[in-house]
Amino acid sequence: MPELAYINGRFMPIEKAVVNVEDRGYQFGDAVYEFLESFNGHLFCLEEHLDRLGNSLKSLYFPHVSRDKIRQATIEMLNKSGFDRTGIYIQISRGVQPREHAFGDDLEVQVVMTARDISNEVHEKIEKMAKVQTCRDFRWGLCNIKTVQLLPAVLALREASTKKLDDSIFISDEGVVREATSSNIFICRKNTVITHPLTSNILPGITRAVVLKLCNDLNIQTEERFYHTDELYAADEAFLTATVMGIMPISEIDGHSVADVNPGPLTVELSKVLNQRRCEVDFRL
Amino acid sequence: MPELAYINGRFMPIEKAVVNVEDRGYQFGDAVYEFLESFNGHLFCLEEHLDRLGNSLKSLYFPHVSRDKIRQATIEMLNKSGFDRTGIYIQISRGVQPREHAFGDDLEVQVVMTARDISNEVHEKIEKMAKVQTCRDFRWGLCNIKTVQLLPAVLALREASTKKLDDSIFISDEGVVREATSSNIFICRKNTVITHPLTSNILPGITRAVVLKLCNDLNIQTEERFYHTDELYAADEAFLTATVMGIMPISEIDGHSVADVNPGPLTVELSKVLNQRRCEVDFRL
Repeated sequence: MPELAYINGRFMPIEKAVVNVEDRGYQFGDAVYEFLESFNGHLFCLEEHLDRLGNSLKSLYFPHVSRDKIRQATIEMLNKSGFDRTGIYIQISRGVQPREHAFGDDLEVQVVMTARDISNEVHEKIEKMAKVQTCRDFRWGLCNIKTVQLLPAVLALREASTKKLDDSIFISDEGVVREATSSNIFICRKNTVITHPLTSNILPGITRAVVLKLCNDLNIQTEERFYHTDELYAADEAFLTATVMGIMPISEIDGHSVADVNPGPLTVELSKVLNQRRCEVDFRL
Repeated sequence: MPELAYINGRFMPIEKAVVNVEDRGYQFGDAVYEFLESFNGHLFCLEEHLDRLGNSLKSLYFPHVSRDKIRQATIEMLNKSGFDRTGIYIQISRGVQPREHAFGDDLEVQVVMTARDISNEVHEKIEKMAKVQTCRDFRWGLCNIKTVQLLPAVLALREASTKKLDDSIFISDEGVVREATSSNIFICRKNTVITHPLTSNILPGITRAVVLKLCNDLNIQTEERFYHTDELYAADEAFLTATVMGIMPISEIDGHSVADVNPGPLTVELSKVLNQRRCEVDFRL
């Protein structure tokens, strides 16, 4: 099954999918994106991803983009791709114009999608644990908008990789634990699940929101609040959340073992329930 | 004369110049750039731009890119374009790969150039003065690398435009005056020319360096040091510097008139000498 791409209404093999060099996505990173995953032929949290995409577009003053058209194209993409599990990447850039920082109000947004086989991605069992490091949060101030301003994440991940670690956790200059390079982070302390509140310094992760909902359903206490590296190091359990990855337990932070080196009980329970709920066609936040 | 593009060794009309949607420049902003300008058939500060481009590539762990090849392509681009004054944009992205944050070490960098007629850009006289506002510096921490992580600059410029202003000046959380959205800023106080020192918070502008050199040549005292908004407001003169723009005097900052509302004597002198030196074929920093 060849991998597919979509550009402004047309489907094509991925290797034929091109954009103009003066696309503002290419020259300014002036573009937003989403990544969705399918289970048993349906896209998990499609409406929630469309909500966030709409917020990203609005936050950056993009022209109106039809939510229905994007939904329809995404579903068509899923149906055409035919993998057991499909990952669908959607990128919308502001449009093509002779290069200058100021953008015209009359640009035509460029809608690009790609579909990828993610059948081999682990999601049903917690087979792997992550070793992470912390690093200074040197990203821009609008991390709540899902844009392609991703070079800091790329560099922080590379730094982790060179140390044979799986990821970096961004820490503010004041020591506040933000999130990882492409996932949110949670800690568990005394049976409470804690994560950074929604501010402009973290992405409002869909899986983050799902996990908070599941905690509520399971009567697990949650706190959305700032916490510092000392609490991170002292956590009973810690895990990352993201689309595709689901819940990834953390075993080590900056060389400190997390108390429950094996995935702790809350992590295991949440992961199990998350994987059940991801398969429900009518799951909604 | 049609506008030209160049991609990996091939020249073509700009509208035919395309890159793959999985170019990391498009999906991660994983690309660096330069913009050069010509005077009388030569590119001003070509070697200095190539130096900075090399530094950008190295800072981001890009594979080696031949400086000679880039120089040769840039000069060929200039010769083919045939405008009175040509602006040449060079963008180098890390390469094309199935989308994931981690990058392979074996990618082929994508070298893209475009040439544009900038004959109508003002440079010989100070015909215009800029009215600017200040805004919080919400950019990432590596502004010294000339990457396409430009969305904060785009948004800050837009904010200025909605207020009928020409630009925004980024101010750190501590009140330090950094730079404008695509230019460096200088102030003059008591016959001393002051600008932010080279740190990771500002771009090492070529025109900035040229202006500092000209001050030295002209026995004008300079200080590269941090200064705050109070000093900005109290400046005798203030101006922006960038390629193409050259020196742009500032008349108003956050509604405060700059003391010398007409371009002040230092601004006028530096602008005059800069415009002479830009026409010299053998000018070097």
